[in-house]
Amino acid sequence: MRVTFCCDDTRPDAWLQGLRTALPDAEVDIWAPGSPQADYALVWAPPQRFIDEQPGLKAMFNIGAGVDALLPLCLPPGLPVYRLEDAGMAVQMAEYVCQAVIRFFRGLDGYEADMAQGLWQHRPNPRRADCPVGVMGLGRMGERVARTLTVFDFPVNGWSRTPHAIDGVRGFSGTRELDAFLAGTRVLVNLLPLTPDTENIIDARSLGLLRSGAYVINVGRGGHVVDEDLVAAIDGGHVSGALLDVFRTEPLPEGHPFWAHPRITLTPHTSARTLARDSVEQIVGKLAALVRGETVTGRVDLRRGY
Amino acid sequence: MRVTFCCDDTRPDAWLQGLRTALPDAEVDIWAPGSPQADYALVWAPPQRFIDEQPGLKAMFNIGAGVDALLPLCLPPGLPVYRLEDAGMAVQMAEYVCQAVIRFFRGLDGYEADMAQGLWQHRPNPRRADCPVGVMGLGRMGERVARTLTVFDFPVNGWSRTPHAIDGVRGFSGTRELDAFLAGTRVLVNLLPLTPDTENIIDARSLGLLRSGAYVINVGRGGHVVDEDLVAAIDGGHVSGALLDVFRTEPLPEGHPFWAHPRITLTPHTSARTLARDSVEQIVGKLAALVRGETVTGRVDLRRGY
Repeated sequence: MRVTFCCDDTRPDAWLQGLRTALPDAEVDIWAPGSPQADYALVWAPPQRFIDEQPGLKAMFNIGAGVDALLPLCLPPGLPVYRLEDAGMAVQMAEYVCQAVIRFFRGLDGYEADMAQGLWQHRPNPRRADCPVGVMGLGRMGERVARTLTVFDFPVNGWSRTPHAIDGVRGFSGTRELDAFLAGTRVLVNLLPLTPDTENIIDARSLGLLRSGAYVINVGRGGHVVDEDLVAAIDGGHVSGALLDVFRTEPLPEGHPFWAHPRITLTPHTSARTLARDSVEQIVGKLAALVRGETVTGRVDLRRGY
Repeated sequence: MRVTFCCDDTRPDAWLQGLRTALPDAEVDIWAPGSPQADYALVWAPPQRFIDEQPGLKAMFNIGAGVDALLPLCLPPGLPVYRLEDAGMAVQMAEYVCQAVIRFFRGLDGYEADMAQGLWQHRPNPRRADCPVGVMGLGRMGERVARTLTVFDFPVNGWSRTPHAIDGVRGFSGTRELDAFLAGTRVLVNLLPLTPDTENIIDARSLGLLRSGAYVINVGRGGHVVDEDLVAAIDGGHVSGALLDVFRTEPLPEGHPFWAHPRITLTPHTSARTLARDSVEQIVGKLAALVRGETVTGRVDLRRGY
């Protein structure tokens, strides 16, 4: 069995070592143009040339949860593509989002900034009822985020393509219920997969529907947000600020208006890092199950986009 | 029935209004020297004169969870003193502590600071096993904090005077197990009541027992920490930093070394604010139960100090 690794912007060592340890009889190599045909591939944003040169793959594993980088490619019809499911990323998302929601709700940036200037002063206590959180996207990660927010007694709304029942979360689904979801939301958390249906979903119209003083947390993909609409909504005052971890182009290009905006906080796509050990373990488990002829979860529906 | 309110640093309006609405037949007033004898009192750090002039109180309610401000007073023997139990404060503590632990674990201050300087760069992923969190004090608030930390999959240790079993929390108790608790802890969270037994518990000795690169979160009382020992442990490098919400003197005095320390983050005693509505509701409920001759929880053992 031959396994090939085609992930340009990832350090390969931990992956190759993990695969070789778990699959001692397999040939495991980094793909380069002209490499021999492999049986299985681990990929992150592979070039079309990789796809074209590997027509005999039995399955392809995306080493992330979002497969938007595969959607523009021309893939062999019927090639099974699997994405990472959780693999240690859901708890990271819950961490990142919860700390952000808490800091916004409690005004902790402001308190810390005051104290850094030697200023001891209190503001009125915030009211939890004024801070409903809306989670868009209720897959493995979105569901964990929404559940964890309920642990802090926040009112939580959830929105997804198809209905998902989650204890303590008010569910909305489909295009028809999007506006009601937005209108009941103060803190908008985006964890959607990026597909033609969800691209640009956070635009002037949807931002305008949020409760006044809204806050936007984007941990989905940069392509979900119309950048200039977000800046305008903040500058206009309806949206009070944003925390952005993902961008249309990464790294965020020099000179982009997000960089210097005083009410936008940025992190470098670090909300949920792919963890090599957990991910290799999951992929090797799935690969072994496929070889045994078993069914494996996490298969991507490429027409749906996730 | 007469209820008196003796809380100098608290805005009285919401309290008086809440008490008058809930107890329409009672006389409810702010205490001043010479005020008539009341049946019940709500207090926060009252002067000895208040105690001396009100010898006929049937019960006294402390409008906070910690009663350390009452311990130096000479109180009539047998006067029942009740403290607030949770009353909306436990979830606030869980919020404050969890966001702080997450930000330390994930290095989010560093990522945000990098991005604020236009710098897109990643650091190695932290390992959860390297970040056991130790919660000192497992009362209503400490227990909620410890439980909530387990939701994020952190290894959690708990230490208290007497054993407390909490699912997912490794329990330590008493003086005999303090050192083992500290030695297994990277992030130390203090939620103890301040008593003669716990004063100065966070000193050079206990800080030295923590895992290397420790982080200290103090939401108990300022008197738990030996200020100069904490600064020395941070400057010496064994402790990587601290988040402090409470201080020996509040507001923190001008010129105190905490103010300007680059690795100490400060907030102005805001980790868990007393919420007037929730607190009035709890105290009125207890007061009515006492009048009916029922037993009421939250009675303070003044010899024990909480």
